[in-house]
Amino acid sequence: MSTDLHSSYKKLIVKNKDLIVLSSAQAMLQWDMETMMPPNGVSLRSEQLALLSGLQHKMSTSSAIGNLLKTIFKHPAYESLNEVEKRNVQLIKKNYDEQTKLPTKLVAEIAKQQAITVNTWKKAKASRNFNLFKPELEKLVALNKQAASILMEAKQTRTPYDALIDIYEPKMDAENIAKIFKDLQTGLEKLLQKIKTATQPDTRILLRKVPVEKQRAIAKLLVEALNYDVSSPNSGGRIDETEHPFTTGYYDDVRITTHYHVDRWTSSIFSVLHETGHALYEQGLPQEWKYQPVGSSCSLGFHESQSRLYENIIGRSKEFWIKVMPKIKGMKLELDEFIRAINVVTPSKIRIEADEVTYNLHVIIRFQIEKDLFADKLTIADLPTVWNQKYKQILGVSVENDSEGVMQDTHWASGLYGYFPTYALGNIYSGQIINKIQQENPSWRDEIAAGNLENIRAWLTNNIYKHGNLYDPADLLKKATGEKPDVRPYLRYLEEKYQKLYAF
Amino acid sequence: MSTDLHSSYKKLIVKNKDLIVLSSAQAMLQWDMETMMPPNGVSLRSEQLALLSGLQHKMSTSSAIGNLLKTIFKHPAYESLNEVEKRNVQLIKKNYDEQTKLPTKLVAEIAKQQAITVNTWKKAKASRNFNLFKPELEKLVALNKQAASILMEAKQTRTPYDALIDIYEPKMDAENIAKIFKDLQTGLEKLLQKIKTATQPDTRILLRKVPVEKQRAIAKLLVEALNYDVSSPNSGGRIDETEHPFTTGYYDDVRITTHYHVDRWTSSIFSVLHETGHALYEQGLPQEWKYQPVGSSCSLGFHESQSRLYENIIGRSKEFWIKVMPKIKGMKLELDEFIRAINVVTPSKIRIEADEVTYNLHVIIRFQIEKDLFADKLTIADLPTVWNQKYKQILGVSVENDSEGVMQDTHWASGLYGYFPTYALGNIYSGQIINKIQQENPSWRDEIAAGNLENIRAWLTNNIYKHGNLYDPADLLKKATGEKPDVRPYLRYLEEKYQKLYAF
Repeated sequence: MSTDLHSSYKKLIVKNKDLIVLSSAQAMLQWDMETMMPPNGVSLRSEQLALLSGLQHKMSTSSAIGNLLKTIFKHPAYESLNEVEKRNVQLIKKNYDEQTKLPTKLVAEIAKQQAITVNTWKKAKASRNFNLFKPELEKLVALNKQAASILMEAKQTRTPYDALIDIYEPKMDAENIAKIFKDLQTGLEKLLQKIKTATQPDTRILLRKVPVEKQRAIAKLLVEALNYDVSSPNSGGRIDETEHPFTTGYYDDVRITTHYHVDRWTSSIFSVLHETGHALYEQGLPQEWKYQPVGSSCSLGFHESQSRLYENIIGRSKEFWIKVMPKIKGMKLELDEFIRAINVVTPSKIRIEADEVTYNLHVIIRFQIEKDLFADKLTIADLPTVWNQKYKQILGVSVENDSEGVMQDTHWASGLYGYFPTYALGNIYSGQIINKIQQENPSWRDEIAAGNLENIRAWLTNNIYKHGNLYDPADLLKKATGEKPDVRPYLRYLEEKYQKLYAF
Repeated sequence: MSTDLHSSYKKLIVKNKDLIVLSSAQAMLQWDMETMMPPNGVSLRSEQLALLSGLQHKMSTSSAIGNLLKTIFKHPAYESLNEVEKRNVQLIKKNYDEQTKLPTKLVAEIAKQQAITVNTWKKAKASRNFNLFKPELEKLVALNKQAASILMEAKQTRTPYDALIDIYEPKMDAENIAKIFKDLQTGLEKLLQKIKTATQPDTRILLRKVPVEKQRAIAKLLVEALNYDVSSPNSGGRIDETEHPFTTGYYDDVRITTHYHVDRWTSSIFSVLHETGHALYEQGLPQEWKYQPVGSSCSLGFHESQSRLYENIIGRSKEFWIKVMPKIKGMKLELDEFIRAINVVTPSKIRIEADEVTYNLHVIIRFQIEKDLFADKLTIADLPTVWNQKYKQILGVSVENDSEGVMQDTHWASGLYGYFPTYALGNIYSGQIINKIQQENPSWRDEIAAGNLENIRAWLTNNIYKHGNLYDPADLLKKATGEKPDVRPYLRYLEEKYQKLYAF
């Protein structure tokens, strides 16, 4: 590598390391805000977060980074950079472009409107009043349409909506997603029909009241079973409590949260398994890439594939509970009854409470609406009607009020558009991943039943974690499974599973 | 106020606000490191803290701040600034000078050597090996002598050591302290003689084993008694556990820590009372000065006066426990026995375990040594011998090894010189403060016995908290008590208290 290319590259990586470290510090302050901060601390915390994100923006759009990028890309020896170095430079460029192409004024307007919209959404949801929410959401979507148009030019995507999707699932687009989701929807609807006509399981076990202390003990058992270390002297994890579960952190300090509902005791079980899947991915990233752009996860879809693999494919399997259930003392649980209950399929109004079969239908509805909204085929005023129609038609449920309907999720109020589809993509990827694991190691279920999750973890490490952010999601999927995104393995997994459970 | 003076002043305050907010963010990351962080997070956390303190240094030495200060101080209308505005500008100038007068290289060398010295100190203390510690401490002291000389010039103090004292206790100096400490030492030695020859109390109550859960419940009782809110929906406080107790935070989010020793159950009681004294001071600063330099505490000495007032003058009084003790269920405590035990006086080797009478003698020894060290009258090699001689002579105890002697505290290893005297100054101020309160409200003890601490809190608010950092400590003391630093009220308080307890 030529000397000044080499030195420019090194300088760029050092500058970018500051951005990574700064954003990990912001993540910690956010974590503290959700978990530990006394209520009165909120205004100081907003000041801290605003200051740090201002510094972050200033540093990431600095002319120093811009000039280094120019030098490197124009350098005659550019091709002498190796694969990792090139990817680092490209990822820094992607972030630089996303941050600099948008006028500072627009970014500030969006940030401000976002805060207002979230706040209004909370009030509107509490009072079941979509009309309160509507004008603020209109402003926020209008601003984001502006941003999406600018990003479309910069990224050369086909539509503004595609430019947003690309933020979360690079190189994916709405056309591709629509095609994939069509097959997914067809498959799920067929399966749902069969399930509906079968005998329904007894789910009374889910209604038991389980004290928080007991649920906490179960959570510890679960993370131990998955080898997510939250207690040893070398641990890099924690479990805390928040309203909505999440995972945050970087490499050696990755923390999960959950919520213990006394009257829905399995809720914490599956949120802990879900978040642990996220955490293991973050902790499994290659140590030698720490503080480099490649030392991060591939995409939101891939992240979700990891959480759903542990939550559902493993965590709702009979094999997993064969080993774990005997460790739960004093609860008198019957294995088969428990497995049937935690896998019950019931079309419902609320996405985050949905079962494995109907979950993706919730996501598909959101995708269809977002797509039309950003193509100006729908207005904000249309949303409640369209939402309720789709829920009736696809899930067969009647939405009684908009708080259980179009206002149930925070995403749109928070300015996240193009984000929802990654949830379903994650499920699809998880099906392809387990299919590949099945091919390579047909006894993986027996291993789980013996309490051995190490081969699964090793496979994920070697085929997903260790590639960090070296590839775009479609390329990583190809590398790991040999396939393009394909709904068939996931549908087959569901078909086989529910056929046994519901005996149809 | 002339327009451009006014606008420069406003700009300066806005720029300085960023520094205040940034340092509050650093404090939170440090708090998390001590309380919550999984062990593996330490290296990432060092990166975060190093980055933020680098940014802090850059921002606080920026030419923007330098130029604004120049414009304001040279402005013909400078005198038209009001008292608060002038003080704000002067405090920013003090910080700017302290940060800019020292060459960046020296600051970096000190930071690096400090990290090494602390690390070596831990090992040396664990292995009782002063010779391991010696060379690193020599380097650190040499670097700090260089810094002190530069600061002496900038601050125009009489000696380099005075320049260091001025960082922690502005406008105080070693000559003044020496004079005050001489009287203090004489008074304490006399009192100690009387106590030694009196009948000693039964202290077996201190040796009870009390489970951590019980101690935690007592801690909650104590903060409730002091009105430090750690649990309401408007709370701005927390209690957590760390090896060494501390207080951190800013205005509406001020957190304390303690350590629960099963076999020394009163240790957590007094550390909670102590830290609560610090926390109430921080939370009591005037809201209208938030994010301004005057919106901070006056000095370390004043901070300690607040913690010691609540820990000792109130917290070890019989009146306080009359109301609190009945709330401690299931421990069978006898009030008079308990009060005599928690006030037992026993000369010992360890400062942080010392009683009210001998504590200041530990501090005086450190001050005498520091003073001679920075006047080149002592070398690092001399420290153990000098230390042990002074402990024999002043406290009458034989130090068996340097880990219980010169290596017991972290301060010198951490580059803190001129810091120790503020502990004793705080005790002296607390004596003057309670003396003034006694004059204005002779029934304060009866009020405490009735569980009413509100008048004490109101007095502290009106006479100390509300002045923030508007005055240097000597001026604040004058304003609050009408006096210069004076050991007599404190000695009188001790004399009266121990005469009753020991019946001499």
